[in-house]
Amino acid sequence: MESIVIGLILFPAVISGNLNYVLDTKYINVPLDHFSFANNLTFKLRYLVNDTYHVERGPIFFYTGNEGDINLFAQNTGFMFDIAPYFNALIVFAEHRYYGTSLPFGNLSYTSPKYLGYLSSGQALADYVYLINDLQNRYATKELWKVPVVAFGGSYGGMLSAWLRMKYPSSVVGAIASSAPIWQFKDLTPCENFNRIVTNVFEGFGGEKCSRTIKNSWNAIRSVTKDDTGKVMLSKLWNLCTPLKTKDDIDNIIDWLTNVYTDLAMANYPYPVNFLAPLPAYPVREFCNRIQQNSYDYKNDTDILNSLGKALQVYTNYTKTTNCTNTVADNLGDSGWNFQACTEMIMPMCSTDLDMFENNDWDFKKYSDDCFTKEGVRPRSEDVPILEYGGKF
Amino acid sequence: MESIVIGLILFPAVISGNLNYVLDTKYINVPLDHFSFANNLTFKLRYLVNDTYHVERGPIFFYTGNEGDINLFAQNTGFMFDIAPYFNALIVFAEHRYYGTSLPFGNLSYTSPKYLGYLSSGQALADYVYLINDLQNRYATKELWKVPVVAFGGSYGGMLSAWLRMKYPSSVVGAIASSAPIWQFKDLTPCENFNRIVTNVFEGFGGEKCSRTIKNSWNAIRSVTKDDTGKVMLSKLWNLCTPLKTKDDIDNIIDWLTNVYTDLAMANYPYPVNFLAPLPAYPVREFCNRIQQNSYDYKNDTDILNSLGKALQVYTNYTKTTNCTNTVADNLGDSGWNFQACTEMIMPMCSTDLDMFENNDWDFKKYSDDCFTKEGVRPRSEDVPILEYGGKF
Repeated sequence: MESIVIGLILFPAVISGNLNYVLDTKYINVPLDHFSFANNLTFKLRYLVNDTYHVERGPIFFYTGNEGDINLFAQNTGFMFDIAPYFNALIVFAEHRYYGTSLPFGNLSYTSPKYLGYLSSGQALADYVYLINDLQNRYATKELWKVPVVAFGGSYGGMLSAWLRMKYPSSVVGAIASSAPIWQFKDLTPCENFNRIVTNVFEGFGGEKCSRTIKNSWNAIRSVTKDDTGKVMLSKLWNLCTPLKTKDDIDNIIDWLTNVYTDLAMANYPYPVNFLAPLPAYPVREFCNRIQQNSYDYKNDTDILNSLGKALQVYTNYTKTTNCTNTVADNLGDSGWNFQACTEMIMPMCSTDLDMFENNDWDFKKYSDDCFTKEGVRPRSEDVPILEYGGKF
Repeated sequence: MESIVIGLILFPAVISGNLNYVLDTKYINVPLDHFSFANNLTFKLRYLVNDTYHVERGPIFFYTGNEGDINLFAQNTGFMFDIAPYFNALIVFAEHRYYGTSLPFGNLSYTSPKYLGYLSSGQALADYVYLINDLQNRYATKELWKVPVVAFGGSYGGMLSAWLRMKYPSSVVGAIASSAPIWQFKDLTPCENFNRIVTNVFEGFGGEKCSRTIKNSWNAIRSVTKDDTGKVMLSKLWNLCTPLKTKDDIDNIIDWLTNVYTDLAMANYPYPVNFLAPLPAYPVREFCNRIQQNSYDYKNDTDILNSLGKALQVYTNYTKTTNCTNTVADNLGDSGWNFQACTEMIMPMCSTDLDMFENNDWDFKKYSDDCFTKEGVRPRSEDVPILEYGGKF
């Protein structure tokens, strides 16, 4: 279960509401492969620029794009716009290769590892170094050797900011790496920590009864959907776009729920955002309130699932514009992230009795097998990210 | 002229005489491409191990192999063997990919950029990180998380040692980077410095007359070989294996001479070595002595060239076992280094009136064109090594 589908967003403090910032869209040709010379292909990397607050000699605030369309991050990172006037900063948002429109092989980009294989954090970092060098050539004044560049990023983008400073210290003078889990790798952090933190958010904002309801729901789902009648019943109860039919469908909806709860916790901002989904302020509180409105006094499994179904609409239908509950939504370039998670971003996750998720061991072998089935690739080893980016000393 | 053929050895202080150290030969399968996932090929990287002085918990002294057969470096790096007993160290020499027997595609490896393209410093560093991780898994004791690893290297291998510590600080606790010109890149060091230093060695060990003779020889060669008679004469005078025929041959022999003088300076050790060639102690002194024996009172160009031809035998025939003077010797995997020099190791070099070499501007455009003619590749830009490894802050 759960396995590779864990969209990596976390709780970036750099995120703020959608404020419709105006940015110019630009492109730069970058090498497809920065580290080898077996081909000399290049492609267009997109980046966005806002020079409203920029004064000559001012620094460059450089957002290291994550796993999604760069506009999404630009429109949700008010922090950079808030502080830019105090620094006379130029604001740049660089798109991560293989997301948004920065597709090296156009429509073919995702069709096979032959094309998709150049999607990696190392190549993305080198893109940013390349773009920063280009910006230096254009914005450096005659008197100054270099304009100071500060990297900004949240979640995976924050990891990239941190790694940019570590790996390329001459490109950026510093990095603000928000919610950047650079230790969420083999043996660096207990695999259950992340899910415990998510559980804490639900307990903190919704009370212990809320997280307990979720914990109880897993058995309820498994039990109710044992037969076809139950599958039909739950599909109707939750108004699913794609009705449940097989055992795999049940595993998948449990994965999906796991992601929803994680997303709610990650996007539990004190203001409404349209980031992972259109969400109210404090969506976890709202979610738990709705469960409570349907009472915690469950008589049976169906009661639990009925209550949960209503609460889930905070995530699936807050705007009341969707006709059914889509459990296979492709937010934030999920397929790109799944490939990254199956090659180098191997983040051990597990759940135990001490969190609200269905119990689940970390099993690298199984993870690797799932990757091969779903993505056609396997991680070389669980060591990959630690070899590349280091662990603890 | 000169252009890309500058075998990068410099004066590594780690070098000592051939002492016939005994090492075990081992192999490890490493990924062909550490930074992308377009293929999942692996190949056998060779490495050598000596555990004579090793005691459990002792550190690993890890030589980061350069552009040549690793045995050559192992047999000439006495320093590591000298100090290993004091540290109970395990000694490891890792071969650089595409040199020695570490050929990813066997005999095909050098046949086209498609195969040769994975020859890069970044990939080589990642090989070393991969091997070090493997050694850690085998040599770490139960009590210790990691065995301290210290990188050693000279010249290009020294650059790799320094970069290993910079880029992968969790893999090595330190690096001894001997004669490692990590600033021999665009705008970091004046392009004439290297040739001035070589000239200083000739002046210091052979006197100002020696370097002046060399400086005068360039015009002598160009002048004498203007016609075919002169070409035949010089070919006989220097007993060349391949007689001079074209204008290109003259340019090539001038490149070769430039490399010979550079090699002599780089290998001007106080003891005999068999490193770039079988050489006596202080080969520069010996070279200049032989010029002097043939008198500095030159009547004409032929006198200069006659004298030079005799002195050159210090380099070409010190053992008196060669039948003719081979000016196209392939030492230390020259073709591999030429590819590296044409892709990322772009080291601006020039010569002026203030050194003993034929005057030569640094001309990146021409350098790039020469690369394309000789190697079928061009550097993406002169910035490549600085983007990857940083310059001065």
